[in-house]
Amino acid sequence: MNNNFWITDKPIQINECIDKVVRAEAGAVNTFIGTVREFTKGKRTLYLEYQAYKEMAEKKLSQIGEEINDKWNDAETAIVHRVGHLDISDIAVVIAVSTPHRNDSFEASRYAIERIKEIVPIWKKEHWEDGTKWIGDQKEQTTYIPSEEDLRND
Amino acid sequence: MNNNFWITDKPIQINECIDKVVRAEAGAVNTFIGTVREFTKGKRTLYLEYQAYKEMAEKKLSQIGEEINDKWNDAETAIVHRVGHLDISDIAVVIAVSTPHRNDSFEASRYAIERIKEIVPIWKKEHWEDGTKWIGDQKEQTTYIPSEEDLRND
Repeated sequence: MNNNFWITDKPIQINECIDKVVRAEAGAVNTFIGTVREFTKGKRTLYLEYQAYKEMAEKKLSQIGEEINDKWNDAETAIVHRVGHLDISDIAVVIAVSTPHRNDSFEASRYAIERIKEIVPIWKKEHWEDGTKWIGDQKEQTTYIPSEEDLRND
Repeated sequence: MNNNFWITDKPIQINECIDKVVRAEAGAVNTFIGTVREFTKGKRTLYLEYQAYKEMAEKKLSQIGEEINDKWNDAETAIVHRVGHLDISDIAVVIAVSTPHRNDSFEASRYAIERIKEIVPIWKKEHWEDGTKWIGDQKEQTTYIPSEEDLRND
């Protein structure tokens, strides 16, 4: 099951994620695709960088799949998250959940994206047009002061 | 806008639908994919046939896009529905809705599939393993007795 949950530094192929969950028992696949948005509250993003603890992040993505299996009957989940430099409209994350009936696929997919932001160790660095940067976790709530080491990796 | 809403008798390329709505202003794309399920309440489907009044169906799909624009801010929608012979796991419908934030994309996509089943003139003919057939509308609620003409087109 673990090969349904992975971190990549390459452009994400949406179909690769969807193909993992399409099956004869399922009549519904809900897919959530997170892309890099150019404007946030009027402020322009030039590009993003995502960093992850790869092994732990994949383990946590897999855990989300297990949580979905506990909560919804006969669901199959695949999740891929990209790291590295992402330009505007690049795909950062794809979630695909197949279920026999559509309601469950919507609910489980929605659950997955919220859980990714809660428990998966992936950090985002926003590069704004005005030259400032912002580093934070996926919930966009944490005030995080970058360390010297973080800055050296700029 | 109308080229975002179409009926096809060819296999659906998911990316073709998604590509129509990915844009710099959007950070979220929700995609719903309806596939042919093999078993329904223990009964095995061999294949399906969908028929549509193509022009009217495309007009109604486009109307759903307009309804979404009325209900959600800055949404872009694309919907493709396949007609003809579909085997198990073939894709019958793809909906893609992009919005700036994820909540709206989930809600609008969910709205779209419910509305498709309510207002779009597409009929489904199920071919069961036991040789029986069932013809109905998309809500799967209508008791529809096929006419001689329907049967002649078998």
